[in-house]
Amino acid sequence: MKLKNKTKNKSSHLKKTGMAPGQFLFTGERKVDNTKIQLINYDKENIEEIQFKNIATALKKIEKSEKTSWLNIIGLHDTQVIRSIVEHFNFHNLSGEDILSVGQRTKLDDYDHYIHIVSKMFKEHNKDIEEEQVTIIFTQNVLITFQEKEGDVFNNVRERLKEGKGQIRSRKSDYLAYALLDSIVDHYFLAIEHFGNYIEELEEEVLINPSESLLPTLHEMRREAAYIRRSIFPMRETVNRFEKLEIDYMNIETKIFIRDLYDHTLQVIETVTVFKDAVNGLLDLYMSSVSNRMNNVMKVLTIVSTIFIPLTFIAGIYGMNFTNMHELEYKYGYLITMISMGVLTLLMIIYFKRKKWL
Amino acid sequence: MKLKNKTKNKSSHLKKTGMAPGQFLFTGERKVDNTKIQLINYDKENIEEIQFKNIATALKKIEKSEKTSWLNIIGLHDTQVIRSIVEHFNFHNLSGEDILSVGQRTKLDDYDHYIHIVSKMFKEHNKDIEEEQVTIIFTQNVLITFQEKEGDVFNNVRERLKEGKGQIRSRKSDYLAYALLDSIVDHYFLAIEHFGNYIEELEEEVLINPSESLLPTLHEMRREAAYIRRSIFPMRETVNRFEKLEIDYMNIETKIFIRDLYDHTLQVIETVTVFKDAVNGLLDLYMSSVSNRMNNVMKVLTIVSTIFIPLTFIAGIYGMNFTNMHELEYKYGYLITMISMGVLTLLMIIYFKRKKWL
Amino acid sequence: MKLKNKTKNKSSHLKKTGMAPGQFLFTGERKVDNTKIQLINYDKENIEEIQFKNIATALKKIEKSEKTSWLNIIGLHDTQVIRSIVEHFNFHNLSGEDILSVGQRTKLDDYDHYIHIVSKMFKEHNKDIEEEQVTIIFTQNVLITFQEKEGDVFNNVRERLKEGKGQIRSRKSDYLAYALLDSIVDHYFLAIEHFGNYIEELEEEVLINPSESLLPTLHEMRREAAYIRRSIFPMRETVNRFEKLEIDYMNIETKIFIRDLYDHTLQVIETVTVFKDAVNGLLDLYMSSVSNRMNNVMKVLTIVSTIFIPLTFIAGIYGMNFTNMHELEYKYGYLITMISMGVLTLLMIIYFKRKKWL
Amino acid sequence: MKLKNKTKNKSSHLKKTGMAPGQFLFTGERKVDNTKIQLINYDKENIEEIQFKNIATALKKIEKSEKTSWLNIIGLHDTQVIRSIVEHFNFHNLSGEDILSVGQRTKLDDYDHYIHIVSKMFKEHNKDIEEEQVTIIFTQNVLITFQEKEGDVFNNVRERLKEGKGQIRSRKSDYLAYALLDSIVDHYFLAIEHFGNYIEELEEEVLINPSESLLPTLHEMRREAAYIRRSIFPMRETVNRFEKLEIDYMNIETKIFIRDLYDHTLQVIETVTVFKDAVNGLLDLYMSSVSNRMNNVMKVLTIVSTIFIPLTFIAGIYGMNFTNMHELEYKYGYLITMISMGVLTLLMIIYFKRKKWL
Amino acid sequence: MKLKNKTKNKSSHLKKTGMAPGQFLFTGERKVDNTKIQLINYDKENIEEIQFKNIATALKKIEKSEKTSWLNIIGLHDTQVIRSIVEHFNFHNLSGEDILSVGQRTKLDDYDHYIHIVSKMFKEHNKDIEEEQVTIIFTQNVLITFQEKEGDVFNNVRERLKEGKGQIRSRKSDYLAYALLDSIVDHYFLAIEHFGNYIEELEEEVLINPSESLLPTLHEMRREAAYIRRSIFPMRETVNRFEKLEIDYMNIETKIFIRDLYDHTLQVIETVTVFKDAVNGLLDLYMSSVSNRMNNVMKVLTIVSTIFIPLTFIAGIYGMNFTNMHELEYKYGYLITMISMGVLTLLMIIYFKRKKWL
Repeated sequence: MKLKNKTKNKSSHLKKTGMAPGQFLFTGERKVDNTKIQLINYDKENIEEIQFKNIATALKKIEKSEKTSWLNIIGLHDTQVIRSIVEHFNFHNLSGEDILSVGQRTKLDDYDHYIHIVSKMFKEHNKDIEEEQVTIIFTQNVLITFQEKEGDVFNNVRERLKEGKGQIRSRKSDYLAYALLDSIVDHYFLAIEHFGNYIEELEEEVLINPSESLLPTLHEMRREAAYIRRSIFPMRETVNRFEKLEIDYMNIETKIFIRDLYDHTLQVIETVTVFKDAVNGLLDLYMSSVSNRMNNVMKVLTIVSTIFIPLTFIAGIYGMNFTNMHELEYKYGYLITMISMGVLTLLMIIYFKRKKWL
Repeated sequence: MKLKNKTKNKSSHLKKTGMAPGQFLFTGERKVDNTKIQLINYDKENIEEIQFKNIATALKKIEKSEKTSWLNIIGLHDTQVIRSIVEHFNFHNLSGEDILSVGQRTKLDDYDHYIHIVSKMFKEHNKDIEEEQVTIIFTQNVLITFQEKEGDVFNNVRERLKEGKGQIRSRKSDYLAYALLDSIVDHYFLAIEHFGNYIEELEEEVLINPSESLLPTLHEMRREAAYIRRSIFPMRETVNRFEKLEIDYMNIETKIFIRDLYDHTLQVIETVTVFKDAVNGLLDLYMSSVSNRMNNVMKVLTIVSTIFIPLTFIAGIYGMNFTNMHELEYKYGYLITMISMGVLTLLMIIYFKRKKWL
Repeated sequence: MKLKNKTKNKSSHLKKTGMAPGQFLFTGERKVDNTKIQLINYDKENIEEIQFKNIATALKKIEKSEKTSWLNIIGLHDTQVIRSIVEHFNFHNLSGEDILSVGQRTKLDDYDHYIHIVSKMFKEHNKDIEEEQVTIIFTQNVLITFQEKEGDVFNNVRERLKEGKGQIRSRKSDYLAYALLDSIVDHYFLAIEHFGNYIEELEEEVLINPSESLLPTLHEMRREAAYIRRSIFPMRETVNRFEKLEIDYMNIETKIFIRDLYDHTLQVIETVTVFKDAVNGLLDLYMSSVSNRMNNVMKVLTIVSTIFIPLTFIAGIYGMNFTNMHELEYKYGYLITMISMGVLTLLMIIYFKRKKWL
Repeated sequence: MKLKNKTKNKSSHLKKTGMAPGQFLFTGERKVDNTKIQLINYDKENIEEIQFKNIATALKKIEKSEKTSWLNIIGLHDTQVIRSIVEHFNFHNLSGEDILSVGQRTKLDDYDHYIHIVSKMFKEHNKDIEEEQVTIIFTQNVLITFQEKEGDVFNNVRERLKEGKGQIRSRKSDYLAYALLDSIVDHYFLAIEHFGNYIEELEEEVLINPSESLLPTLHEMRREAAYIRRSIFPMRETVNRFEKLEIDYMNIETKIFIRDLYDHTLQVIETVTVFKDAVNGLLDLYMSSVSNRMNNVMKVLTIVSTIFIPLTFIAGIYGMNFTNMHELEYKYGYLITMISMGVLTLLMIIYFKRKKWL
Repeated sequence: MKLKNKTKNKSSHLKKTGMAPGQFLFTGERKVDNTKIQLINYDKENIEEIQFKNIATALKKIEKSEKTSWLNIIGLHDTQVIRSIVEHFNFHNLSGEDILSVGQRTKLDDYDHYIHIVSKMFKEHNKDIEEEQVTIIFTQNVLITFQEKEGDVFNNVRERLKEGKGQIRSRKSDYLAYALLDSIVDHYFLAIEHFGNYIEELEEEVLINPSESLLPTLHEMRREAAYIRRSIFPMRETVNRFEKLEIDYMNIETKIFIRDLYDHTLQVIETVTVFKDAVNGLLDLYMSSVSNRMNNVMKVLTIVSTIFIPLTFIAGIYGMNFTNMHELEYKYGYLITMISMGVLTLLMIIYFKRKKWL
């Protein structure tokens, strides 16, 4: 598993250092050719989905509609689009800045006439997990999402909207905001599951063959786990503030669902904490395994040395050139020596057996 | 000891990813053939126990009764049964979803007209500890429990009901909820005791014979301890919220019992924390033992090498073929050499004794 | 030092699993032959001490007395005695259960008309520290203590009562409760002091001679320290709740003393935490010492091998049987070889000196 | 990367030990020749920047002006300048003392008629990161900054003031204080980025070549990370108190910006915490790498010894001088011996291959 | 550096075990021959300093004076002096007990009509740091300090009083209490600085020469750091309670100074925490250094063994006495063998160079 987008975001703050707050500067990388503008208008009876090329037309459409509007913006490099939206809805400049600053902490800001949520989205892409920042802003009737590139975790929400399943169509943007966050949190489980499976694979390998090449992998995983945990952790406070919001366009019924979402968030954080501990456990296990192997190497060395060094010494004795060594001329001298050596070897082996080295 | 059910639950959340909230989908595995429906109706004077095949009949029976009803549902695969109950009592859809989602965090949700408690139950099965999710929902007169499969930890509560021992029969569903939770927490002690005994066994083995094969066992135990702790930990908050509940059908007397239950929960959490530390201590002990053994191996190697390498060198000297080595022809040359070697060996042994290597 | 009673209590909870709450079942072991019933009645002017065989007579005596009564029950196996007291004073059944369940967490429960305190008592017995659960229940004029066996830490309180020293005689049961808890906490210092001395002894041994046999001792001490800390820790909250109690029969003056007791409790917890850290420090020290010793062993091996292996090689060279080795016939060949070997050895020794291995 | 100024500040408190509080003593080192006095007066329409040699003239200028004044003092050795300012604005003596005491904790003090903020500034200087204490004091219309030496992180604020970009010119000193703190926090990211890059470089080196010389570097980095974290950490509370300030000259709009600054501060603290963990991870990795290398060294030793010691023994056998060794005279004795040795070597190599040592 | 007084205090609590609370028993050691009684009376205009032999005369003098009185008692062995003071000012008996119990936790007790502060004082004595308990009790006009022996950290306060510098003379005992605590905290920096320097010295030694003798030193330092931290830590709460005191004789102006003192206390605690971490870091560094050295020892052993063992084997081969070894009679047999050995050695050296062992 590999997390993408990670290192890039880290330096996103640098670009902005020394700028006035509320400036519109995109701190990420351009990831789509053209900014896509998708609008879904729905109420209990009807739903329509339209693609726009021009943001002005989209905004006009929203203004005229009396339904709930979900405006989805894909691609943030064209700051003019963002500026139009911010100005049209009279959002605070800091909101505009936050939309364009990828690498934000997950958070919820309450600007009285609208709610601004920043969140990390983990989605599967090929076999990797991709991380992407998504901003959700909603007022009573309008919800706008901003994404860096195509592909998101909201397809199930779109389907539910289209098919009119559940209560989603009969509710307003507050419920939609919940549904989107719920989907984001659900996909955290996916990313974590991925990670968990990888841990299990490694575990076996660490026990059976703790090779040197595992060390950087384990080290990398530790950082990854810490990174994921840090990304997900502020979601707890964010959802909590979402539940506690005191705004008149927030349905009391939605709060029950948010509370449920809060439970899920707790669970996902707990799970990722468990995995973080598991990775640390793996590193310990690796070190223990390495230590055990070293022990085995030492034992082999010691057994071989302890058996042969004394034998070699005996052989050395009878290799001396003293003129006066009568043993050398004894008829069975050689034989006796060899037998003694054999006996010595046997005694050693018994000793090692007893010590459980063999 | 081995905990069952564990790995399965982990992935239970995945099945549901992307679904609308409040959907009725069973995320576990089917563990019984038919959903069993058990009803116990009781008041101070009478008690009756009935098995139903059909949920509708059971619900009708409950409606007509003026006694306190305990409805026990075993087997969650038949979502229709759950749906009937949820609709009959006008429970929230999220409650329905939670009943069917095994792998939930222990929690208490207060839905004004009823209380929803999710909890983990540890029960002995053969020699293993099985974990199972149990949901307890209660209103003023009705308490419903949902279990995944047969066999639970509530037999003592059933007996007390039947025999009319204690106050249980003269109280309502709030007390019954307490009694069930109390029984669940009591059985945590059982599971922990099991675990504690296993730790003690291992401790001895680690000290006497820290073999390599212990490492995976200890590692597994660490994970197990962390898992149990994580399962039990949220019970504390749950019981605390139970005590703090402000509902009119909660008897003031019951609160005293819940406070007592809270003390037990604290104690069980403390104990499991102690065991978690004990397992970590065991791993340290193992590493120390391994290190000590390595040290011993090194000592043997060093003693043998240090004694025989110099001796072999001396033998090597007199094995040289120089023509001019007069010592070789001395009458006592060989004898003196051998005696010198003996003395050298003795000195070495004294040295090692002093160093406490022998 | 060894803590007694420990392992037994651990399983005390098991006995009770599955029983109705408020049942009178003694979970410990019978430690005295007969339950002893001691009564001390005192007021500012008089004090009388009476032993009873029968609990009913004692209770009648208390009822008639207008003095403050301290009833001390030794031995809990006779549950009938406990039941009589509980019923006579109209205590809650859970109180009865708690008195008989040894292995409780230290706690204070406020049952409006009386206060129930559970506490651990550490007392010296021979050279060991014995732990015992003591229950203190007090109303305005009556204080009852329940102990498992004879011997307690309250002798000084008894003496002060008899001699009328200090304010104890002119105060009521709230002050007596304080005095008893104060005595219990004071004796914690004793146990801890014991433990501290033992640590100091071991410290020296670890530094001078980190033998293998120390490992289990240190491991045991770590568990012991954790156990003591866990026993004492809840005392803090208990004393805090004692100070915060809002009951009309609690003298305002007593609160000042309880605050002082609270300071002592903090100090005892701090000290035991320090000792816990000290034991962990000892284990680290042990590991470091073992590692240092290994290092020394390695050095000896390396020095001996590094000096003699090359020398042996040289000797081996001149032990070869080539016909064409003219050095062998040189007049000073042998001498030169020996001198070269000496020089080589010297160089090695200088090298080792520089490396600070010698 | 190296942090300057660090060690010096540590002892800054010593100089003052034993002095009356509120004394004007500069605890740092003189870093500029002359105290520089810079004044920027601005309102929505105009801005003027003036350098003064004399503090009295500057203060008169401020008094006469109705614009917002930013007075910047560079160099703290001339305590007379500080005293003049403190007295002119009627600041508390403790403020004066704090301005001159470099090595303070970051903090915000609310003296009713003015706000006193102490902060650490990290700025790049050559390739190092320099730390400097900066004091920000502001009343409704006047903001004064005190720096130890020239060069700061406020150039972007100055430019925005001059160019009238953003809202800065139309706001008062409260917003200016925010803008300065915002710039300080932004530059923390710079310092941390620096640090992060250095960690990444080291990481590679640790994995590829864990040489001994890395140990002091890693140790130094650990201290550095702890130091940076400690410097930045109190900024969180400071910004929080800034947001919570209840003063009438604080614009409600400014609070929204401060909340945004608070989010940035959280993020910078999180990042530095991550780096602290990363350095600890590096040290672990280093130890593991060293351990792995030791293991490899051991393997080589063991392989060589295990192969050649038995062979040498065999050679030793046939080097013995027994008269009765018939093998020596066999025609193929030598050949067979050599072949046997070859076979033995082969078997050993196969054994090592199996053990994965080769 | 060495901390004195430490071990003694530890057992101070034991002496008192089992005594009634509020008893006057000195738990320390007599450190002065005679109790010294120093009185300083001062107001804005005048100051007088008097030594008394008799406490009664001193108390009379205080009673008659309308100035602020600072009574300093040196030496606690004469409990009669303490008792006189306690009774004269109507202090609580627990105050008397606390004055005499050295080894108390730093704390502030508010007895309505007076404030009782217990604190640890670190002062330099010769080259060591001495710890001493000092009690500060103050009412509106009187402040009394109790010390165990001569020499304290208050000289600068005395000088300020005498010279009338700062505001000290124009304020009352609340400010004096602040000034004394401030001086105590200032001297903590001194002790910590001492400690910090010692750490730096050791750091170098650990890196250059991690000898075995350092281990007990480092271990001792760890305990010392933990001890100092524990002594200083409760000062934070104490100063905080001092600031929060709601007593009518506490000047509002003094509170600003106490807040400043609180900042210093935070800083001193932070610094000592940093040093505690630094000592732990040193221990890690030591272990790593030892491990590195072991590695080096292993490398030398391995290099020497790996080069010479095979060479010795070759020499052994040609030392065999087979009759049929034609190489032995070759003209250049010896030469070729020697050259081969040289080549083999070279190859080995190249191998080691590659492995970076040389």
